[in-house]
Amino acid sequence: MVAAARLEQANQDALRRMCEAEPVLTAVAAARDVVPGMTDRTILTSGPAMPFARYTGGQRAALVYSALYEGLAASPAEAERRMEDGDIVVGACHDHGCVGSVAGVYTASMPVFVVRDQVGGTTGFCNFYEGESRQRLNYGSYDDGVRDQLRYIERVIAPTIGAAVQRAGGIPLKPIMRRAVHMGDELHSRNTAATLLFGRELFPHLLHAEHRDEVLQTLSYLSASDYFFLRLSMASGKAVADAARGIEASSVVTAMSISCLGTSVRVSGLGDEWFDGPFPDVSAKLFEGFTADDIEWIGGESTINETVGLGGFAQAAAFPLQNYQGGSPEAMIEMNLAMYDITVGENTDYKIPYLRYRGTPTAIDVLKVVQTGITPVLDAGLAGRGGGQIGAGVVRAPLACFRAAADAFLARYGPVT
Amino acid sequence: MVAAARLEQANQDALRRMCEAEPVLTAVAAARDVVPGMTDRTILTSGPAMPFARYTGGQRAALVYSALYEGLAASPAEAERRMEDGDIVVGACHDHGCVGSVAGVYTASMPVFVVRDQVGGTTGFCNFYEGESRQRLNYGSYDDGVRDQLRYIERVIAPTIGAAVQRAGGIPLKPIMRRAVHMGDELHSRNTAATLLFGRELFPHLLHAEHRDEVLQTLSYLSASDYFFLRLSMASGKAVADAARGIEASSVVTAMSISCLGTSVRVSGLGDEWFDGPFPDVSAKLFEGFTADDIEWIGGESTINETVGLGGFAQAAAFPLQNYQGGSPEAMIEMNLAMYDITVGENTDYKIPYLRYRGTPTAIDVLKVVQTGITPVLDAGLAGRGGGQIGAGVVRAPLACFRAAADAFLARYGPVT
Repeated sequence: MVAAARLEQANQDALRRMCEAEPVLTAVAAARDVVPGMTDRTILTSGPAMPFARYTGGQRAALVYSALYEGLAASPAEAERRMEDGDIVVGACHDHGCVGSVAGVYTASMPVFVVRDQVGGTTGFCNFYEGESRQRLNYGSYDDGVRDQLRYIERVIAPTIGAAVQRAGGIPLKPIMRRAVHMGDELHSRNTAATLLFGRELFPHLLHAEHRDEVLQTLSYLSASDYFFLRLSMASGKAVADAARGIEASSVVTAMSISCLGTSVRVSGLGDEWFDGPFPDVSAKLFEGFTADDIEWIGGESTINETVGLGGFAQAAAFPLQNYQGGSPEAMIEMNLAMYDITVGENTDYKIPYLRYRGTPTAIDVLKVVQTGITPVLDAGLAGRGGGQIGAGVVRAPLACFRAAADAFLARYGPVT
Repeated sequence: MVAAARLEQANQDALRRMCEAEPVLTAVAAARDVVPGMTDRTILTSGPAMPFARYTGGQRAALVYSALYEGLAASPAEAERRMEDGDIVVGACHDHGCVGSVAGVYTASMPVFVVRDQVGGTTGFCNFYEGESRQRLNYGSYDDGVRDQLRYIERVIAPTIGAAVQRAGGIPLKPIMRRAVHMGDELHSRNTAATLLFGRELFPHLLHAEHRDEVLQTLSYLSASDYFFLRLSMASGKAVADAARGIEASSVVTAMSISCLGTSVRVSGLGDEWFDGPFPDVSAKLFEGFTADDIEWIGGESTINETVGLGGFAQAAAFPLQNYQGGSPEAMIEMNLAMYDITVGENTDYKIPYLRYRGTPTAIDVLKVVQTGITPVLDAGLAGRGGGQIGAGVVRAPLACFRAAADAFLARYGPVT
């Protein structure tokens, strides 16, 4: 048996740690140099760790393409063979402090943001947004254009930003995110203001750069990429969620992850075990020429942002989302309000102007999800069967993974009394 | 008699000209070099032109202080005498293509933004935001700090921005403003996003600047000044409103102005005549320690933004305003919606996400104002009796000036049939 008071205190502790976290971008570095356990032959992808043989469709393709990109194989067949043999190691992002955007593939040479929670001491990593093209490696696409863009980010954009971050002595992200929520961002499917605010923080430190041409290119990349900040909010989300990880008797969700097999969640009081369910339901707004039948689930861990009270949990701060992922302001407000029923409390930093500056619903309680039957609402980009992004939508996490987690929680801690 | 169809067509023409305008910041220059009719001994202030003797209180003080600032007099007494004698010429902003923020004082040496409507060919001017201090010349305050800040803007900030604008070949403002309305700005009392977006446009052209230290100071000034863009939206508003000026049989308002004597409006089909009324009603949120009795009307023409469909007419795009000027999201929505009852149509560029991207209510029709009794809602900063800003609030223009304008309109054109 777990006393209701103890559960409540553990969950309040989880909420407090999430709210008190102070995520700071401390560096930009190659994954091989900073990501724990990363080797030259490691490729990380979204979802719980599993043998390569179980990866299918677009997520499998993204892994194969990553091996080609990294020069670990000369052909798709060789890449598959080496991944099957374990010569190339396929790992789970979350096991390495990373979070995957869609398929989320990380290779050793890719630059990552290093975001450290200065209060809790946890660190989250995320690689870079590839740019505005619909064809991107993390959406399961690969060709010369995708490769060249990744190299360009690695060789021009990341070093320029990294040098500026170093000169700045690190860039605190919470002030940027707090402000962005007052400027129409929910920091998952809309990062327009945060990208601008980040650029402004960076700029004085870019002035000192030696390579003016590369600075101009970086400014141009930042101007063209409203999504740039997503990877920073994700790395921050990982550091913040991990601050609430491993609290005895806490039923708070610390990660939600989608793979080609379904949806999985982790719970603070249950360590690093994943609890699985089917694919989410989705209400999509697709690019012209696509239908719901074209949607393929190839992974996704940007839901770390919803895990810490942003994204779908801050939708009522981001009405312009209707242009990108459909829906109406009224529906966004209703969905956002429903999230208060399944969370421990209100965020002390991220506040929604339309809701009279009510803090965003933060720290999802699996027990409340199961009791109410209300599942987390997630803003998400959507991949297509043929690779590439085909739209965006509002995704509902499936109840089954929360039920499995709640069952395990009650099995471990006993009924709540 | 004026046929209803002719009136409607004239008003649609006014709306169309406002919507089609393409305001571009073409230069930053000293007022003496660009403002029509400006001489070294001219001082411009808010409100219809009138003899110096009629200016009272804070607006009179602002005029006197301006003369001291410009070196046109060695003492307040000398300044008053010379303004009474006409040796220093006091003019009305609107008669010189300018719009005054609060008292709105312009002297010859002050830098101004030059904003040209590339479609209609009209030009609007506005001087610079003085910064975050509550003590500012345009709020009737003057001391060494106010003077030094004005000189700093004149000698460091304005030339740095001006050079970047020149290098950029001009900066189109409509794309910035259109986007800012999707990021929580209504471009009168909230200009946070527009200031950021403007900064981003400027950055690449600041990289080439010779004086790196001045660039850093300018960046720092821009970062600290969420209100910076207000003066650009005002200059733009003046150019855009003037594009709809002088249309025969149009009952559309082309300017609203507050002075120390009251509120006045101009109407497109009635040339440059002002129609007067009393001071506005105000629902204020005052800084700590102030009460409504401390409010003093010392001028204000930033209402040019409401005249072209922004500010109070776009409040439902700017819920964070509640922090600055009070009110609730529900009240903002209600006030915003009411403005559709007194305007000719919906803006084709400025659209409100919360209202499912409905265009802002644009082109105020004096006849509709009088018919409905609904007066324009204006977002405004508020000056105190002792000088300086003491708060902000939602201001309702008084019905009397619209009634006077409507009477004159009907007297000139006859009843609508």
